[in-house]
Amino acid sequence: MPATPCHVVIVGGGFAGLWATRALAAAPVRVTLLDRGNHHLFQPLLYQVATAGLSAPDIAAPLRHILRRQRNATVLMETVAAIDTRARRVLCTNGRGVDYDFLVLASGATHAYFGHDDWADHAPGLKTLDDALHIRRRILSAFERAEAEHDPAARRAWLTFAIVGGGPTGVELAGTLVEIARHTLAREFRRIDPGAARVLLLEAGPRVLASFPEALSAHARAQLQRLGVEVRTGQPVQAIDADGVCVGADRIPARTVLWAAGVAASPLARTLGVPLDRAGRVPVQPDLSVAGAPEIFVAGDLASVQRPDGRPVPGVAPAAKQMGRQVAAAIRARLAGKPAPRFRYRDFGNLATIGRMAAVVHLGRLRLTGALAWWFWLTAHIYFLIGFRNRLSVMLSWTWAYWSYQRAARIILGDAAADQPRSTRQA
Amino acid sequence: MPATPCHVVIVGGGFAGLWATRALAAAPVRVTLLDRGNHHLFQPLLYQVATAGLSAPDIAAPLRHILRRQRNATVLMETVAAIDTRARRVLCTNGRGVDYDFLVLASGATHAYFGHDDWADHAPGLKTLDDALHIRRRILSAFERAEAEHDPAARRAWLTFAIVGGGPTGVELAGTLVEIARHTLAREFRRIDPGAARVLLLEAGPRVLASFPEALSAHARAQLQRLGVEVRTGQPVQAIDADGVCVGADRIPARTVLWAAGVAASPLARTLGVPLDRAGRVPVQPDLSVAGAPEIFVAGDLASVQRPDGRPVPGVAPAAKQMGRQVAAAIRARLAGKPAPRFRYRDFGNLATIGRMAAVVHLGRLRLTGALAWWFWLTAHIYFLIGFRNRLSVMLSWTWAYWSYQRAARIILGDAAADQPRSTRQA
Repeated sequence: MPATPCHVVIVGGGFAGLWATRALAAAPVRVTLLDRGNHHLFQPLLYQVATAGLSAPDIAAPLRHILRRQRNATVLMETVAAIDTRARRVLCTNGRGVDYDFLVLASGATHAYFGHDDWADHAPGLKTLDDALHIRRRILSAFERAEAEHDPAARRAWLTFAIVGGGPTGVELAGTLVEIARHTLAREFRRIDPGAARVLLLEAGPRVLASFPEALSAHARAQLQRLGVEVRTGQPVQAIDADGVCVGADRIPARTVLWAAGVAASPLARTLGVPLDRAGRVPVQPDLSVAGAPEIFVAGDLASVQRPDGRPVPGVAPAAKQMGRQVAAAIRARLAGKPAPRFRYRDFGNLATIGRMAAVVHLGRLRLTGALAWWFWLTAHIYFLIGFRNRLSVMLSWTWAYWSYQRAARIILGDAAADQPRSTRQA
Repeated sequence: MPATPCHVVIVGGGFAGLWATRALAAAPVRVTLLDRGNHHLFQPLLYQVATAGLSAPDIAAPLRHILRRQRNATVLMETVAAIDTRARRVLCTNGRGVDYDFLVLASGATHAYFGHDDWADHAPGLKTLDDALHIRRRILSAFERAEAEHDPAARRAWLTFAIVGGGPTGVELAGTLVEIARHTLAREFRRIDPGAARVLLLEAGPRVLASFPEALSAHARAQLQRLGVEVRTGQPVQAIDADGVCVGADRIPARTVLWAAGVAASPLARTLGVPLDRAGRVPVQPDLSVAGAPEIFVAGDLASVQRPDGRPVPGVAPAAKQMGRQVAAAIRARLAGKPAPRFRYRDFGNLATIGRMAAVVHLGRLRLTGALAWWFWLTAHIYFLIGFRNRLSVMLSWTWAYWSYQRAARIILGDAAADQPRSTRQA
């Protein structure tokens, strides 16, 4: 072992990066965790910030506060621009460099528009807290603009919400949006009936929640329809612009289109100089290191990993945490001169919430729907949320929301006028 | 009375505008409340959002939710550009117009840089929730940048915070900043000692909290110094740029300068076409109407009103609420063919908080300092906060903060890189 301890640099403070950092607490290493923000984000509840149910600080905690007692870990707020694999150095956008002995790349994924980058302006995606506040502003402003609008067709377009993508995020957004329209905003407007809002969930594939068994997908679809969501499957979106969305042969005028369809790996992967998979992720060795660069590990959504049966490891929080811990174990093994363990994904199941008292749960042979699934989802999310204070605050918000049908964070932040697409800014 | 009820248009959903709207609930009028945002803001606690103690939604509530049961009130989210007093029409920035029979102008004040508009980029002020999130980002990022910085002088500048203006907002910001540096962030950094941060409070006049009796000002100053704030009075700030502030003969390198010094009336006042006072406010008649335009009232920070002894009515929440109710009473009297009552300001006293267990209270002959004043301040602010859920959430945050020394909302939102002044963006 060298005189100065081995330096592990971890890029990204999400589930993979943070769990890797924590699992190195007792290892004979110095750890530097780099993240462009100052916080760890509990992404499974991000849609609740987007739909005004929770405040941004409820689902995030400062990384350096989480790691305050881990003396071998230093947290730096830096945006990483590239990896210089030859010099073993991480290059930051401000020109600084950080040298590493081991690198853990866990910079995650961002939303992808499948070659339609012009859709990004019209259909925001949901990956960061800033994305969530942007979507919240768009949703709340749409009802405000409908109230101020005199032309019936224009008003109708403000009251039409199209969500592209029928995965868990799309289902959660759609279910919550109808609840906001039918319950939260009821009786608060004088000129419009917010309950008449149209919420569409557009999925290109044959069914929603494709990662669940077919029976649960069918159940989720029925639940969404019962709540008032129009579900369309089997038709890809053809076009998105400031005024609406084209799907199949139909053009749907909608001033609010939300993107929950695709993700792509962080562009940092490209700077590694190794072949990537179709989604831009890094194919890794059984111990999650990179072929030809054993000192570099990739964890979380950025890693392309298969299960023994050939199915990919899904991009969910439990998988990212497991990969983070695996990478730490591999580094510890290498330092001890032992062979690194192989990564084995333990599938703890799959949860998705649909709306009030409606969720689907798939845990091995256990399949739950309805109220029981919803309580299960609720308890699991409170349990896994980091920070005692956040748990209390989220429980308070949820209890209050349940009884009042109100949302705790119905506040428009940022410049709402700036969101209006240029073509329509002048009335 | 006309067949269609008389239309009262109220511009601004702050304390004056909201209290005017509510006081017209039983009047034979239609009320339209216009605000550029969707929420009423509890401004007295805005500094707590700026210093990461509370979330933005904790101190704000949607205007249309507050007014949901007032059937004669319509809320519209519109930005007002000008008043056409001849046509009796409010002109919005989107080209729409709203005709009025009575107009209540309550668009408040914004921060003013006394002719130094270039200071605005370097020394943000605190009036809106977006301002508060911007200041929160600046404060939290400064400690992050100090930790990443290797040059001792540059690090020192990141750890120096200068607050310009020794009124209640400046005192609250300074007192909270030292608490954050000494307690909240203690033991969370590896390279810097956040407790070594320097917090300066710069006041051009002879004493801090000039609206309080001299003995309480002196007490507040002593308290601030005991907490660790460097208080400088009697020296106006000469210059502010990206790297620091000049005060008296000194240049103080400081990467974070906050502006709590001056306010100016909303520029809407200028479109009324009447003479304004030096701060841009509208001198009003005894019933708060505008001379020569009896159908226009001005309330809140936008109105220039003197007390019988010649002292101005202060720009505080209780005064704004009283003016709002006065304007509603005047409109009701006019509609009933009676003379409008004269406005009389009832001074309920003056509170300012300094830090943990330290505040000053001045209520007539009653003067409190220390822990008792602090409990009084705390109780009053919880009591006046709108919304049961907000009260609970704020109490939870405060109780937790008191025991843990932690701040509930230590989350950087928005693009921190964009805040860095251009001259220094490249290291």
